[in-house]
Amino acid sequence: MGRRPHPRSQKSQKSPFPRLYGRHAVFAALANPERSFRKLHVTHEMAGKYEMPKGVTIQYGDDHDLGRLIPADAPHQGFVLEVDPLEPAWLGDILAEAENDGQNRPIIILDQVTDPHNVGAIMRSALAFGARALVTQDRHSPGETGALARAASGALETLPWCRVVNLARALGDIGDAGFWRIGLDGTAPTTLAEALGKTQPALVMGAEGEGMRALTIERCDQLARLPIAPAMESLNVSNAAAIALYAAATRVL
Amino acid sequence: MGRRPHPRSQKSQKSPFPRLYGRHAVFAALANPERSFRKLHVTHEMAGKYEMPKGVTIQYGDDHDLGRLIPADAPHQGFVLEVDPLEPAWLGDILAEAENDGQNRPIIILDQVTDPHNVGAIMRSALAFGARALVTQDRHSPGETGALARAASGALETLPWCRVVNLARALGDIGDAGFWRIGLDGTAPTTLAEALGKTQPALVMGAEGEGMRALTIERCDQLARLPIAPAMESLNVSNAAAIALYAAATRVL
Repeated sequence: MGRRPHPRSQKSQKSPFPRLYGRHAVFAALANPERSFRKLHVTHEMAGKYEMPKGVTIQYGDDHDLGRLIPADAPHQGFVLEVDPLEPAWLGDILAEAENDGQNRPIIILDQVTDPHNVGAIMRSALAFGARALVTQDRHSPGETGALARAASGALETLPWCRVVNLARALGDIGDAGFWRIGLDGTAPTTLAEALGKTQPALVMGAEGEGMRALTIERCDQLARLPIAPAMESLNVSNAAAIALYAAATRVL
Repeated sequence: MGRRPHPRSQKSQKSPFPRLYGRHAVFAALANPERSFRKLHVTHEMAGKYEMPKGVTIQYGDDHDLGRLIPADAPHQGFVLEVDPLEPAWLGDILAEAENDGQNRPIIILDQVTDPHNVGAIMRSALAFGARALVTQDRHSPGETGALARAASGALETLPWCRVVNLARALGDIGDAGFWRIGLDGTAPTTLAEALGKTQPALVMGAEGEGMRALTIERCDQLARLPIAPAMESLNVSNAAAIALYAAATRVL
């Protein structure tokens, strides 16, 4: 006779489908016509406060029931929405649009940034400052999770997110389309403001600590740094991205 | 006979003293002459890689031993340092220094920002962009924790942090010392760049969602917004702070 299997934890049930939580993230998903839903879990309290959407199965529960669906300590605010992942955006469409509309809006590219809170916050800032899209490599970057969606505060539903197989090749295409590829690197002699000039920028950022991979750096047109004091080695990656996006959006051209 | 008490969780032992973790945060604390240490916990692996500091009790262990000292999933990277909290900085000293050196460096003030990751990231950006100090209210703001120290990536040890009992009164003193108190508010007609001008700024930020309290707004000389698209209601508070600090540091005066 074998040993009894270890009882499966009941704390957070695994699901193959993303579970979005928090009011902002859930309402943004419900308002997205591209999004398909599996089930909305809602507390009785919230069901009494908000009009419930039509066309989605609703399951009522208490705080504890909803808490069991998502990671411990994740704040659901009374809403958990089980969804199908979104169709990723196609980089070719983004680049064609840029060639056609002639607007000076950036693309932001992340090389192996893995923390979903950082990637989500970057999507939020990217949408806020008019970026065209976020580009990440399929491997070594987070998927569409509740934590990412919550940090993105709705931006997951509207900012085009291109997930490419080969980031170096994507950078090649982005350069061919006329974008000026600026890699953020604390050791660069040029500041970001100088590098931006009047270009249509593609802002490339690596992971904290490791920075960009060599192949990524090779595909940049220019490296640039944020002007930080020697006392600090680097910034949080989502903070650095927010500054880069702000700097690109507020250039006096 | 009563019921047996619920067995106490062995997962993360509580301690009255802050436990700093992660290489950056721990090394920065060890290098801080103002800091007093209780015990350094280190893995055998890391003890073999780095020279161990003198004058502090060292306890060797494995990954699991260190993991038990701190919250689940907190990445210790082989180092946990039990410390005494730092002496808070005194706002009067910061203001006197500003009057004496005449440098145009900002102060950053947080009104009820509670998330330790955000406050830590803001300290990191504040140090990077030459801010004089962080000011928070004693109540409704996080204490000196491992999570905050890790997000601050060393800045907790060097950026003066004033914790005041009454934030409105502190804003009064800051104004009297000649700082231009700019409250970040998404509904303000003026942009931050316009409000900054050539002032010595005190940048005031409220919690996400709630914003600043009425009494805080009353004490600001001017409200200003970051120029974000209507598609996004707000930014992550540490992202907004990073942008404000960058904007203050890179003004062309």
